[in-house]
Amino acid sequence: MDELLTKLCQTWHSTIPVSEFMQIRPLNFSGGEFSTTAPIMPNLNLHQTMFAGSIYTLMTLTGWGMVWLQQQMLSVEGDIVLADAHIRYMAPVTQSPEVKVRWPDTDLSPLQRGRRVKVRLEVQLFCEAKLCAVFEGLYVSTPKA
Amino acid sequence: MDELLTKLCQTWHSTIPVSEFMQIRPLNFSGGEFSTTAPIMPNLNLHQTMFAGSIYTLMTLTGWGMVWLQQQMLSVEGDIVLADAHIRYMAPVTQSPEVKVRWPDTDLSPLQRGRRVKVRLEVQLFCEAKLCAVFEGLYVSTPKA
Repeated sequence: MDELLTKLCQTWHSTIPVSEFMQIRPLNFSGGEFSTTAPIMPNLNLHQTMFAGSIYTLMTLTGWGMVWLQQQMLSVEGDIVLADAHIRYMAPVTQSPEVKVRWPDTDLSPLQRGRRVKVRLEVQLFCEAKLCAVFEGLYVSTPKA
Repeated sequence: MDELLTKLCQTWHSTIPVSEFMQIRPLNFSGGEFSTTAPIMPNLNLHQTMFAGSIYTLMTLTGWGMVWLQQQMLSVEGDIVLADAHIRYMAPVTQSPEVKVRWPDTDLSPLQRGRRVKVRLEVQLFCEAKLCAVFEGLYVSTPKA
């Protein structure tokens, strides 16, 4: 699992410069649950709390990472893109947060038969055990040509 | 107007490190319409198009900037935060985009009487004249204590 998380982190940082600047990194992956974090410093806003754009980006990549991890576990390939998202900010984020997502047991096997798969994920952001933001995103994975 | 846009750009870059890294900058402000842009290079994803998180951040700050500009025009002060947002990605962004927002003529005078104001803004992102993303955000401005 640790090897998979290292590979995911390298993929993010080497292909998405903003993710490296934000210092986004995976925390844990249990198969059914995945968590990430980022430090507060490069992600400040003018209220000295975490910037709304950084919160969204961290949550988006957490969802994307979950689909990527599931694909790696099944040895299936697919280009994952975000089609649609909704985010609600409930409280300011004053410390490095923990972002969590659960896998809804979506069947990824259509990718092996050349069909695309849609996955709707709910991602939660906690700061000192308090739920501060909720993100819902629709991800689409397309079989590689 | 140019002075106001310079002040806005400095506010972003000096208080939100991610906005400086992304090289987000104001383009035009006519009073009723405001536009921004960012180069593609620091904002790439692993498909070599603009990263979903960068697109969202640019659109969020465009809306935020519009509320800030309206407040400056009326010489009223308020802390502006994003409460809620929805984004739909319609096409990949392959070039430096133009992001536009129109002011819905929301009355900001309650701020002068110590009351907060809510503004719902629709922001559009164009790439080579094609509409590639639509963002809707609810901004709340709270009178400064």
